[in-house]
Amino acid sequence: MARVLTPRAEDFPRWYQDVIAKAELADNGPVRGTMVIRPTGYALWERMQAEMDARIKATGAQNAYFPLFIPESYLRREAEHVEGFSPELAVVTHGGGKQLDEPVVVRPTSETVIGEFMAKWVQSYRDLPLLLNQWANVVRWELRPRVFLRTSEFLWQEGHTAHATEEDARAYARRILHEAYEDFMVNVLAIPVVVGRKTARERFAGATNTYTLEAMTGDGKALQMGTSHELGQNFARAFEIDFLGASGQRELAWTTSWGVSTRMVGGLIMCHGDDNGLRVPPALAPIQAQVMVVKDDANGEVTSAARKLADALRDAGVRVGVDERVETPFGRRAVDAELKGYPIRLEMGPRDLAAGNVVLVRRVNGSKTPVPLDNVVALVHQALEEDQKALYEQALQFRQSHTAEVATVDEAAEAAATGWARIPWSAVGVEGEAALNARGVTVRCLVREDGTVPDSEDEPGLIAYAARSY
Amino acid sequence: MARVLTPRAEDFPRWYQDVIAKAELADNGPVRGTMVIRPTGYALWERMQAEMDARIKATGAQNAYFPLFIPESYLRREAEHVEGFSPELAVVTHGGGKQLDEPVVVRPTSETVIGEFMAKWVQSYRDLPLLLNQWANVVRWELRPRVFLRTSEFLWQEGHTAHATEEDARAYARRILHEAYEDFMVNVLAIPVVVGRKTARERFAGATNTYTLEAMTGDGKALQMGTSHELGQNFARAFEIDFLGASGQRELAWTTSWGVSTRMVGGLIMCHGDDNGLRVPPALAPIQAQVMVVKDDANGEVTSAARKLADALRDAGVRVGVDERVETPFGRRAVDAELKGYPIRLEMGPRDLAAGNVVLVRRVNGSKTPVPLDNVVALVHQALEEDQKALYEQALQFRQSHTAEVATVDEAAEAAATGWARIPWSAVGVEGEAALNARGVTVRCLVREDGTVPDSEDEPGLIAYAARSY
Repeated sequence: MARVLTPRAEDFPRWYQDVIAKAELADNGPVRGTMVIRPTGYALWERMQAEMDARIKATGAQNAYFPLFIPESYLRREAEHVEGFSPELAVVTHGGGKQLDEPVVVRPTSETVIGEFMAKWVQSYRDLPLLLNQWANVVRWELRPRVFLRTSEFLWQEGHTAHATEEDARAYARRILHEAYEDFMVNVLAIPVVVGRKTARERFAGATNTYTLEAMTGDGKALQMGTSHELGQNFARAFEIDFLGASGQRELAWTTSWGVSTRMVGGLIMCHGDDNGLRVPPALAPIQAQVMVVKDDANGEVTSAARKLADALRDAGVRVGVDERVETPFGRRAVDAELKGYPIRLEMGPRDLAAGNVVLVRRVNGSKTPVPLDNVVALVHQALEEDQKALYEQALQFRQSHTAEVATVDEAAEAAATGWARIPWSAVGVEGEAALNARGVTVRCLVREDGTVPDSEDEPGLIAYAARSY
Repeated sequence: MARVLTPRAEDFPRWYQDVIAKAELADNGPVRGTMVIRPTGYALWERMQAEMDARIKATGAQNAYFPLFIPESYLRREAEHVEGFSPELAVVTHGGGKQLDEPVVVRPTSETVIGEFMAKWVQSYRDLPLLLNQWANVVRWELRPRVFLRTSEFLWQEGHTAHATEEDARAYARRILHEAYEDFMVNVLAIPVVVGRKTARERFAGATNTYTLEAMTGDGKALQMGTSHELGQNFARAFEIDFLGASGQRELAWTTSWGVSTRMVGGLIMCHGDDNGLRVPPALAPIQAQVMVVKDDANGEVTSAARKLADALRDAGVRVGVDERVETPFGRRAVDAELKGYPIRLEMGPRDLAAGNVVLVRRVNGSKTPVPLDNVVALVHQALEEDQKALYEQALQFRQSHTAEVATVDEAAEAAATGWARIPWSAVGVEGEAALNARGVTVRCLVREDGTVPDSEDEPGLIAYAARSY
């Protein structure tokens, strides 16, 4: 078989670009740093949206939509926020054929405009908590774009909430972190993320506390898969989100924000892909089983049987595709199916049909087994379940075998050449962190020894994860 | 009861704004012409999206996503298109802290950028038809904005397809028109749209043929609810979308585009609303039945019973909400429920519960009937079905009684003061159309006498619908 992709070991970033191109996931857009998400890639994102949206709504949040255009002055109201985002802004200066009186920015994130409306809607403690989410595009001008991971425009959900107390805000930011994000990433994406707290240096612009979920990529780097922020009273102060408390006093609200984006598609590729292409976990896969007509006889009996099998699988709750393009060489179609990473292929030709069989091919381990047609639905269910677990286990084992326990900043920087380093935070500190940064390594997050998320970076006994990152 | 809304008969546009504010559907955004869609309004849009998305996918189209930013030069490639959209463009001149070499426009629609990529992806007749759709925001600078109907930014779906022949493109544009749009508007929105062909004067910029669906608003005007366009080979020529035909010759493709937007939320309000607020058709309603605790005893028995009832309804496939805010006066909550237009309310207090009853209130006709708790699920299903039909019938009767059959342009202009005019197209023509326009009236569409959609405006015996419009 001709080489389709650059092998990962040869050049991982190039392999990544190859997968995106050959699996027809995305293209570069005409304006620098933008992307076109093609149907195969967008179907992955739609499944992510559906699963995530259900989890977000289960926490009580409601979807809404706020404008793309934000007056420039809004961003200036929160000092850290404007400083963090100014270099990345896209600015509209002309509208309707005229120069605008005040330039407007294309939202890089919506804390400011949502803060403005929260201030309007929140009057009394009875209006709290106010739990909002939006699915939207945002723009952050990128000088070093990489499709899905860093693009000038990307798609995401951004949640914004207001609470009466700091405790309530913290509990909610953590609820999203664990119940929505971690649960989705572990159980749907099959990615064993490390969940922790960002250091002060790595925090979101304007946040008092940032929680993160970090995945290990196939080349041993780290990828931030999502974040949840406590914003303290910073935005409430800037936008006057206050309310009449139960005691009759006016109080400032406590806000949070949290988001995951199309970057997760990049994470999926980088965590599970192999030298033949993408491997999509069954729980996510838009197509879990691809029924393929290898070739057909003159009566089209194989195609009929393939469609019947697809119907039976669909009735049994499996997401199915059918490939009956017999005029295209089967080898080419098989390569394409590998590239796109369908968890299961069911290959069927005249001889298989005559024997009452179909060949069940599993993408995760490459196994090919002839199975009797009348038992295939049960076997498909079993394989999907097993392979979901197998992908998670493989990724976990890879992460563990590429994580070094180290004691010094030097050792951490060395370990980061091939994987992650776990190092006592007390051995790093603010200076050690700067030293790591100077060597291209960042502290991805802090966790407690038992793996739980700390309340402060000053807790004793914390572990820092240090790594190179995308 | 204090007056909540301006009566429709007094000032229809003001009533419309009142409903949007009081039912908490939307707010004006900070940048002129933009809007904030609040959770109650967004839930309507989400239901529209879900229903429409399923219909679009059933025609074989796939979702994708193209960039927000389009190089200005792309729009100039199709002369009519740039002329149509130039006055409405928002232009980004600065990105990442620098002036851009070439300004980029914020997409007003995506024919151009999608055309560019179709040219890349389409090589042979085997790649056709290429059926794409995207859910996205678009920007058209509005000088006279009205929430949901005309906003500088709105949400929509835009479909874009390429075909090997004109016949195939036409058949697909019409399939979307009828199977996706008309079916959704009639059967879900309960709006009796008139489906027809736009005159040359009213066509989309760059189209060879525009199909439209027109709804009558509560003040007898017309509202364009969606359009489907044949673009001929105009965009294929401008973007070089060509392919190797079966005969071995290179041929230009034929393209279509089609869209519906958040404007449909405005249409829903204007078609079905009454002086108490919105009336949401059951097939669309995010909440079909709102279970309301009127008041409760000390043990919270009514609240428990209400939750149990809600569970039973949910299990029976009804979309349910529960209002147990007994600390808020019931009258205020009832007014709010009327405003938001839940098709059914199930009101329950201690006395109802003791009698084994619940009061079933139907929004469409205002009827209030005590019904036994053990029969309520069946009665709710029946009421939802009946009221879906009733809304459609009311709207149809209203349209018919506000449509005049006329013979001259003068009569058409007069009739348009209070409703629609049906007039032979032969009595209007290009000059009559200009005369109508001068009096604030437009030809909304052309239909055949039997109500079907004509292939050309030159067919004999066509009927024109003339009206004032939003």
